[in-house]
Amino acid sequence: MLYIVGLGLGDERDITLKGLDTVKKCQKVYMEAYTSLLSFGLSANGLSNLENLYGKPITLADREMVEEKADDILREAVQHNVAFLVVGDPFGATTHSDLVVRAKKLGVEVEVVHNASVMNAIGICGLQLYHYGETVSIPFFTETWRPDSFYEKIKQNRSLGLHTLCLLDIRVKEPTLESLCRGKKQYEPPRYMTINTAIEQLLEVEQNRAESVYTEETECVGFARLGCGDQKIVAGTMRQLKNIDFGAPLHCLVIVGQTHPVEEEMLEFYKV
Amino acid sequence: MLYIVGLGLGDERDITLKGLDTVKKCQKVYMEAYTSLLSFGLSANGLSNLENLYGKPITLADREMVEEKADDILREAVQHNVAFLVVGDPFGATTHSDLVVRAKKLGVEVEVVHNASVMNAIGICGLQLYHYGETVSIPFFTETWRPDSFYEKIKQNRSLGLHTLCLLDIRVKEPTLESLCRGKKQYEPPRYMTINTAIEQLLEVEQNRAESVYTEETECVGFARLGCGDQKIVAGTMRQLKNIDFGAPLHCLVIVGQTHPVEEEMLEFYKV
Repeated sequence: MLYIVGLGLGDERDITLKGLDTVKKCQKVYMEAYTSLLSFGLSANGLSNLENLYGKPITLADREMVEEKADDILREAVQHNVAFLVVGDPFGATTHSDLVVRAKKLGVEVEVVHNASVMNAIGICGLQLYHYGETVSIPFFTETWRPDSFYEKIKQNRSLGLHTLCLLDIRVKEPTLESLCRGKKQYEPPRYMTINTAIEQLLEVEQNRAESVYTEETECVGFARLGCGDQKIVAGTMRQLKNIDFGAPLHCLVIVGQTHPVEEEMLEFYKV
Repeated sequence: MLYIVGLGLGDERDITLKGLDTVKKCQKVYMEAYTSLLSFGLSANGLSNLENLYGKPITLADREMVEEKADDILREAVQHNVAFLVVGDPFGATTHSDLVVRAKKLGVEVEVVHNASVMNAIGICGLQLYHYGETVSIPFFTETWRPDSFYEKIKQNRSLGLHTLCLLDIRVKEPTLESLCRGKKQYEPPRYMTINTAIEQLLEVEQNRAESVYTEETECVGFARLGCGDQKIVAGTMRQLKNIDFGAPLHCLVIVGQTHPVEEEMLEFYKV
């Protein structure tokens, strides 16, 4: 049996009782380390806190391992109880559909333990989840690659009065260009997009496309370390948020659409 | 201090360790009983399971109590630690913004413990959360009141290729028409919309509006008791799902938009 267990957003105590029961009955415990490593894993502390709580060792599974060795993990799950731990919810912002599909094809039963993800926890700012349109991803721009497909989606959402959640780029264990050429594995240092960079990129695209989808005066909400003890949530215009130091990752950004009175009242508490 | 604690979707063991720590340090524990009472509260068992786990009594707070006596609850929270328990996430499908706004106005600090909600747990069917458009609510039709504003929203979502989550009506503690006339409180028995009723209503509206937004052959996913041990998830056309018995509430429905290959593969596992 393969158990995919959501850990929630903050720290080791955000696992559910059901999740903890599940981990305790597993012979082998993997933890995904390629999206949100940060909250629980990046610090050596994070990982040992989890191991202490579970009373057993955890194998960190980075992107490479999950992609290349999924079948090994799944073969273990034919015989044993295997837990695959995921920050947030197993099917939140990052989905693990691929692992589930492979498991089911191998005849391995899969059970999911849900938890909070950024996709629902953003509700805390008061903007109602059912007033959101399509979620967009903002990738890091490079000298030569400045994709702006998010612009069209934001335009659609705004034309309907809807809020837009912008997920910001995470680059963990990206092979260096040099290593790709040489066939030798070397990795870029991890990078996480800040709210500041996201807003700069958004404004650059608006300047180029000039369809007045949003301006520097458009209301947004910036979220840093959502669900953690030291989370920072600030509402303000793009111009205001652009210069705020939100601190350590992860960051995400909401572009506010039309608001209802109760939404307005809640947002007030987060205003710059 | 007011703690708003998400209980998740299934049973008493879906609370997080942080949530349980929080409840244990509270002098008074309320539980919202007006949306999803069902999963945890409707059965006397559900409630006593929770009380046993927490080691303290819980006061059920129905809609009337929260609306009329919020200030009493909040005044307690000025002096003491008060927990307000919510099925799902505090800011998921049903929001508790109103209580937060009132608390902050009274100078009561508020802390939130997140959990899974239907808004992210639907990810389990394989349709990616960032391919959803605006969420719609389907209200019970009556003889004289057949509102169809969801139709326009579904139309928008489908024109963009997006999936649509339909939240189905819940009527708990609705005053009877007679009681409203007489000024004496009497309530209708609780009603929860089934997937079957939702599809009938959707098809009725399509027949009247005739804008070909969807047909009996449109692919959907029906969810019953999402996140519970006996959850039932079935993918199929409206025609197929219309006749399936999904059993006890709560139900919700997703109208499938354009799908990507991995989404297709996952959906296959749930096909009729």
